[in-house]
Amino acid sequence: VALFCLKIRSDCRGNSLKPVRIGICGLGTVGSGTFNVLERNKAEISARAGTDIVIQQIGARRGNPDCNTGTVEVVHDIFDVARNPNVDVVVELIGGTTTAKELVETAIENKKHVVTANKALIAEFGNELFAKAEANGVRITFEAAVAGGIPIIKALREGLAANKIEWLAGIINGTGNYILTEMRDKGRDFSDVLKEAQALGYAEADPTFDVEGIDAAHKLVILASIAFGMPLQFEKVFTEGISNIEPQDVTNANELGYRIKHLGIASKSNDGVELRVHPTLIPEKRLIANVDGVMNAVLVKGDAVGPTLYYGAGAGSEPTASSVIADIIDLARFIATDTVPTQAHLGFASEALQEYPVLPIAEITTAYYLRITAEDRMGVLSNITQIMSQQGISIEAVVQREPKSEGSQASIIMLTNRVKEKQLLAAIKTIEKEDGIVGPVVNIRVEALV
Amino acid sequence: VALFCLKIRSDCRGNSLKPVRIGICGLGTVGSGTFNVLERNKAEISARAGTDIVIQQIGARRGNPDCNTGTVEVVHDIFDVARNPNVDVVVELIGGTTTAKELVETAIENKKHVVTANKALIAEFGNELFAKAEANGVRITFEAAVAGGIPIIKALREGLAANKIEWLAGIINGTGNYILTEMRDKGRDFSDVLKEAQALGYAEADPTFDVEGIDAAHKLVILASIAFGMPLQFEKVFTEGISNIEPQDVTNANELGYRIKHLGIASKSNDGVELRVHPTLIPEKRLIANVDGVMNAVLVKGDAVGPTLYYGAGAGSEPTASSVIADIIDLARFIATDTVPTQAHLGFASEALQEYPVLPIAEITTAYYLRITAEDRMGVLSNITQIMSQQGISIEAVVQREPKSEGSQASIIMLTNRVKEKQLLAAIKTIEKEDGIVGPVVNIRVEALV
Repeated sequence: VALFCLKIRSDCRGNSLKPVRIGICGLGTVGSGTFNVLERNKAEISARAGTDIVIQQIGARRGNPDCNTGTVEVVHDIFDVARNPNVDVVVELIGGTTTAKELVETAIENKKHVVTANKALIAEFGNELFAKAEANGVRITFEAAVAGGIPIIKALREGLAANKIEWLAGIINGTGNYILTEMRDKGRDFSDVLKEAQALGYAEADPTFDVEGIDAAHKLVILASIAFGMPLQFEKVFTEGISNIEPQDVTNANELGYRIKHLGIASKSNDGVELRVHPTLIPEKRLIANVDGVMNAVLVKGDAVGPTLYYGAGAGSEPTASSVIADIIDLARFIATDTVPTQAHLGFASEALQEYPVLPIAEITTAYYLRITAEDRMGVLSNITQIMSQQGISIEAVVQREPKSEGSQASIIMLTNRVKEKQLLAAIKTIEKEDGIVGPVVNIRVEALV
Repeated sequence: VALFCLKIRSDCRGNSLKPVRIGICGLGTVGSGTFNVLERNKAEISARAGTDIVIQQIGARRGNPDCNTGTVEVVHDIFDVARNPNVDVVVELIGGTTTAKELVETAIENKKHVVTANKALIAEFGNELFAKAEANGVRITFEAAVAGGIPIIKALREGLAANKIEWLAGIINGTGNYILTEMRDKGRDFSDVLKEAQALGYAEADPTFDVEGIDAAHKLVILASIAFGMPLQFEKVFTEGISNIEPQDVTNANELGYRIKHLGIASKSNDGVELRVHPTLIPEKRLIANVDGVMNAVLVKGDAVGPTLYYGAGAGSEPTASSVIADIIDLARFIATDTVPTQAHLGFASEALQEYPVLPIAEITTAYYLRITAEDRMGVLSNITQIMSQQGISIEAVVQREPKSEGSQASIIMLTNRVKEKQLLAAIKTIEKEDGIVGPVVNIRVEALV
């Protein structure tokens, strides 16, 4: 090992602890970033880990021009890495949930710790993978799976460990946030901005995962499980995308002192847990309302600490690598001293995890922004307010927009108080049947985040 | 121990690992918060620590009405706690640097880990205390010493461990931020707001520590040492307070698109390290410019991750307790498994710490806001710009305020490019000697924070 170390590490400082040997599987954006940061910052990383971290092997179908792998062995079969007896930690950066799952399982069976950036894998298969890891005396770490370079998993799992977490709300998809920011700043419409984001490489050719909230749901369920101490329940996350947000709603929100953000929200009360991803109006005074472009942020409310916020790059080669390597360093201290990592996968000891009921979306309580299109005539507004009142819904603010010159339809904009969603939907159903109401009532949830 | 546990813990769940026994020294604001949160959240805390945390003893000269200590033994001599063979962790919450230092030393000599919220103690005596702790096989942890409930020490030390930290900038004194926020929002002057802050309990009777930046300097030096991997050098921090900030400068900054914040700034370049606390103009677009009132935030720039920000309550009973308890939980995992905590005190292994030169303030490079009072006559502005140009200073923006009706003096407001401070001071000296210049030139540093 010392010889190998001399070969690949110029500043090998002869730390007394044994070096930790990692195998990187996948040499795409995150894989190459991980390689490059490990090489560039090896002095700092060794000093912080208390031992040297050696890239023992790379598994990748092809090389990456962004990454000069030098004398490090590159194999084409990633499973070779998972079985390599000289690898202590397998770094899974291939993505997806089929081969990646097999790879992680093989690594665990071979008693290797796993570091992954794979949110889908953890969100959908974390429960069984964690159990398998615990049975084999190894750990899976996944800081990079949520909010890229922001150390939010560590903050929730360790930094806020004294707290009952009451709720958290995150901008955890950079693509969606970029689109909403552009819509607000430039008054553009969704599809326009999406096309540009695709051209710039911020959005995938198939943007469904990002703009429909599936990616955010993966991340949200991971955060929620750590926050509340419960098994992962990805299938229970309510998901609503941003593709129906219209420029006029962005403008109306602004004028009312709000911003529209695509939030992942998790909260816990005596009734159960809420897990939901949807466009949300939030007061512009909140720090998180001012997180723009591709940046991510997570706001966490603990009973002792109050609100805290974590902000940074939610994606990208080196920001994600930053989290991957932080996990490797955490593991390295244990591996170098031949001890077992003491941190539970979801923060809570696995036997202490509890299944809390996840509320259906109809049962959640929140405030609403409504945009009602109506014929411009007497009595319409008064009918609407009467229906709302019958459903026990108070109106906090109302703005009536003059009809445009060409037509005779007015927009009525309302902010409601906090109500159960099913009450609101019942009211909307009644309103839509009213004479003089045109088309569906647009509704967007509103959260004060205090 | 089991019996004791049954007596004081109603939900004692019979974890298989041995309970971790702590002794709390000091039952003031933070001590009572720590006691109360440990009691209220004991189920979550045990589940996260993987073992029970038992308050074995409290050392306090007097009780605290905010805290019902029940059957827990309370002794008057805190040194009894430090010597108690049944205490694993001494929690130092008495403050100050004389008795507290002796207490921590006694605890270490008795092979106890120490958790402290004491920024002055760590900033001024950390180097020797850490060495003593390492010699005795124990750890001192101090998350609560910086930015209250924000887990910033953990984020820097572990979460960003892959990075070369380039710089960090923090609003790390809530009192100062409250005063500056009020000055901006309400156009009030410094002494007015200070008096109110004292009445509200946000500021001490002697506000020097807070408003002159000494408290922030304590915190800054701790952050900088962890960020850059160097021994603590409190005496080298440059400190300038906010008591000279005038309402007109707050207004001018606003009109130029900036906010004035009292920042602690640490940066590292090939020339050395900058450690400085002073009022700073920052662009209002930056998230940290919008951190208001008593809240704290730290912006950290890593070479891999880019900018990240951490926000939350910087003081207060339970926010600070949140950090104290997070440290206890981190230690508990090791104590319960009879292993030695693997995390170095300052993130870098102690033998890897390096002394970097700390630049004197004259040698730092930054941009400046200048307010020059001048007779309202021809040629003054042109003379000033000529002097600036001779010193190699470019002017990025200039605003000339009309003289008020009663007088004939104008204010010239300038933003400069980035220059060495000594160059700027030389220019100011020359300007102040010019005919038509009235009184001293007001200068406030400006940072873009990108």
